[in-house]
Amino acid sequence: MLGRWLDRVRERRPRIHCITNYVTANDCANILLACGGSPIMADDAGEVEEIAALCGGLVLNIGTLDARTVPAMLAAGRRSNALGHPVVLDPVGAGASALRTGTALELLEQVRFSVIRGNISEIRALALGGGSTQGVDADADDAVRPDTLDEAVHFVQDFARRTGAAVAVTGAVDIVADGEKAYCIYNGHPMMSRVTGTGCQLSALTAVFAAAAPGHVLEAAASAVCAMGVCGELAHERMGELDGNAAYRSHIIDAVYRLDGETLDRRADYKIL
Amino acid sequence: MLGRWLDRVRERRPRIHCITNYVTANDCANILLACGGSPIMADDAGEVEEIAALCGGLVLNIGTLDARTVPAMLAAGRRSNALGHPVVLDPVGAGASALRTGTALELLEQVRFSVIRGNISEIRALALGGGSTQGVDADADDAVRPDTLDEAVHFVQDFARRTGAAVAVTGAVDIVADGEKAYCIYNGHPMMSRVTGTGCQLSALTAVFAAAAPGHVLEAAASAVCAMGVCGELAHERMGELDGNAAYRSHIIDAVYRLDGETLDRRADYKIL
Amino acid sequence: MLGRWLDRVRERRPRIHCITNYVTANDCANILLACGGSPIMADDAGEVEEIAALCGGLVLNIGTLDARTVPAMLAAGRRSNALGHPVVLDPVGAGASALRTGTALELLEQVRFSVIRGNISEIRALALGGGSTQGVDADADDAVRPDTLDEAVHFVQDFARRTGAAVAVTGAVDIVADGEKAYCIYNGHPMMSRVTGTGCQLSALTAVFAAAAPGHVLEAAASAVCAMGVCGELAHERMGELDGNAAYRSHIIDAVYRLDGETLDRRADYKIL
Repeated sequence: MLGRWLDRVRERRPRIHCITNYVTANDCANILLACGGSPIMADDAGEVEEIAALCGGLVLNIGTLDARTVPAMLAAGRRSNALGHPVVLDPVGAGASALRTGTALELLEQVRFSVIRGNISEIRALALGGGSTQGVDADADDAVRPDTLDEAVHFVQDFARRTGAAVAVTGAVDIVADGEKAYCIYNGHPMMSRVTGTGCQLSALTAVFAAAAPGHVLEAAASAVCAMGVCGELAHERMGELDGNAAYRSHIIDAVYRLDGETLDRRADYKIL
Repeated sequence: MLGRWLDRVRERRPRIHCITNYVTANDCANILLACGGSPIMADDAGEVEEIAALCGGLVLNIGTLDARTVPAMLAAGRRSNALGHPVVLDPVGAGASALRTGTALELLEQVRFSVIRGNISEIRALALGGGSTQGVDADADDAVRPDTLDEAVHFVQDFARRTGAAVAVTGAVDIVADGEKAYCIYNGHPMMSRVTGTGCQLSALTAVFAAAAPGHVLEAAASAVCAMGVCGELAHERMGELDGNAAYRSHIIDAVYRLDGETLDRRADYKIL
Repeated sequence: MLGRWLDRVRERRPRIHCITNYVTANDCANILLACGGSPIMADDAGEVEEIAALCGGLVLNIGTLDARTVPAMLAAGRRSNALGHPVVLDPVGAGASALRTGTALELLEQVRFSVIRGNISEIRALALGGGSTQGVDADADDAVRPDTLDEAVHFVQDFARRTGAAVAVTGAVDIVADGEKAYCIYNGHPMMSRVTGTGCQLSALTAVFAAAAPGHVLEAAASAVCAMGVCGELAHERMGELDGNAAYRSHIIDAVYRLDGETLDRRADYKIL
């Protein structure tokens, strides 16, 4: 029944304020447009409160963090909190530098997040207040495998409880959980890791799904994660023998553009714990 | 007869200096290359005057405005004015924040623009010295419809007279006007609004058309607007059933690459008031 | 035998730290992923030393240089030098402004580069300590032609000797040389100059090839240049009659994704001087 949250996005067409990195900003904007939302990228502290107020949700992505935008993230986050808008954190590379970990932790302290979405290494770095992420991809040691799934779910739910956010950890198996309930999602394709920014795009999607579904943050986040995975599969089915990650990048966004709630429900592959 | 201005671009291959947003900078560069021009993106105040002097035209786009680049925009604009190069303003999101509206108005005061290109809400915000734009897309209330076209043309021409610029307002119907003459252009496809940055790309195109046609700013701007609309149509004709806005984004730029003056003339759909 | 260096990249999968421009950052990230490496874009002085230490190589690209990132480039470069990681310089637009030329020269003074990759005008500007580059593309006057090839090779080798770097000058004929040996590479397609950032992408590729081949910088650089040229050819063979530079952009990255060492060896077209 996750498909209904996609239908909601298409009906309500939320506008999402993105303070995000310059590597994948274009893809984030286009995936928001693909699913029926609309993006505004604005990161100057002098305008972010006004922009946040025009939008229905906010995503804070630290992918190319610089000192200039941290105050803008804090101001936009607080304003969105005051307005009751959902705020999504994508702690890209948390654990890879003190600046990233510290900024993510400061954001967690100052802003109330609806959803925190990252890979397992990033989420571990935040949960443990540090860490040793090797970059922007999850470390092999941290990977969620069938035999460590229960432990990982426990860990994610514990972090969700402490932060009051739904937490979405994406990888070979995705876990989307709050303190009460956890979705383990099996959709997706390994090739998604060969396209830069599929995580950033998913965080933007999560924000627009959450903005369209007030009061249903966990379901909205699970639906966004599932939708991204299904689109990764659909996109892979289109790949020709000369196609590579650039074609795949386009096909994923195109699949989001074409996806409907019914298809999402039919292809969704998850269990609830 | 708008096709000749495209042919001019291909003959003269102007180099365009872009101070623009990081969301759509890649598309702006590629559409300039598609039509035969060449781009230079440079936004540090320490070099923009030199860069402007190497180019034949300038586009100032406030899509991801930050305090650092405003002085660079002013310096580049003044230098281009001194050199007699066309300068295009794309006031992305004017009306959505005081920073954007104020910066756009300051640019209008300090720099003489050849063309101002925006959606109707942005242009209204500038004309009225404020406004209530809801983001980077035009508000439904502001939309130019058949029954409000005459009024909109009047409004655009009035703003053109006050600024001394040709003004290009794009939407379902595009209006390109100076104080004397107005083009109402019917080319384009609604799906263009589902690709981020088609407006930014058009502003870049307008600059390169204007740079190739000294003394014919209005015609060059009308030709650029018409070319973008025709390419939106041609690109849509290529769309397969699995294609979405990412494929469409590529197809539009590809259509510009393939467009020639003759095709533009044959497909152009406009009237002159 | 250049194909083996590509195979090395696929085996070792080096992580590359990019301090690069916002126009082509996405393409640089995706081409690194295409060839089996992985990218981290990070440009804040507060974290670049930590990020450099997590990576196997660094690329410094001044395409949208701003005052903020110069200290970050210096810090990351020095740290990578201390760690013995290869560092690649892409002096985009050197010669076009005092800021670019001065910054590139300062980087050359403070950082030991493994490879310097640019067009002939940029390299001339650095070698002569100034110059008159007309933008980000090579000037027609500077172009390497069959009758000036020997002279160009001599010039490149002299600059390589002075800097201690391998120097890769790309154009109609590519020259990759250190003080001892020079590769003249004939792969590539003229249409590559109609896609923004093919040079930036090549610089990123060069860094990942060098990171995978310690002690073989010149061969690695020649292999990267050859691979990019071959992919430009393969991508062009796929072009349909409606395709333009946007499709070509994707096809080049896709060709890198599909390329293997054997195909590279079979299609490589070069001579060694």
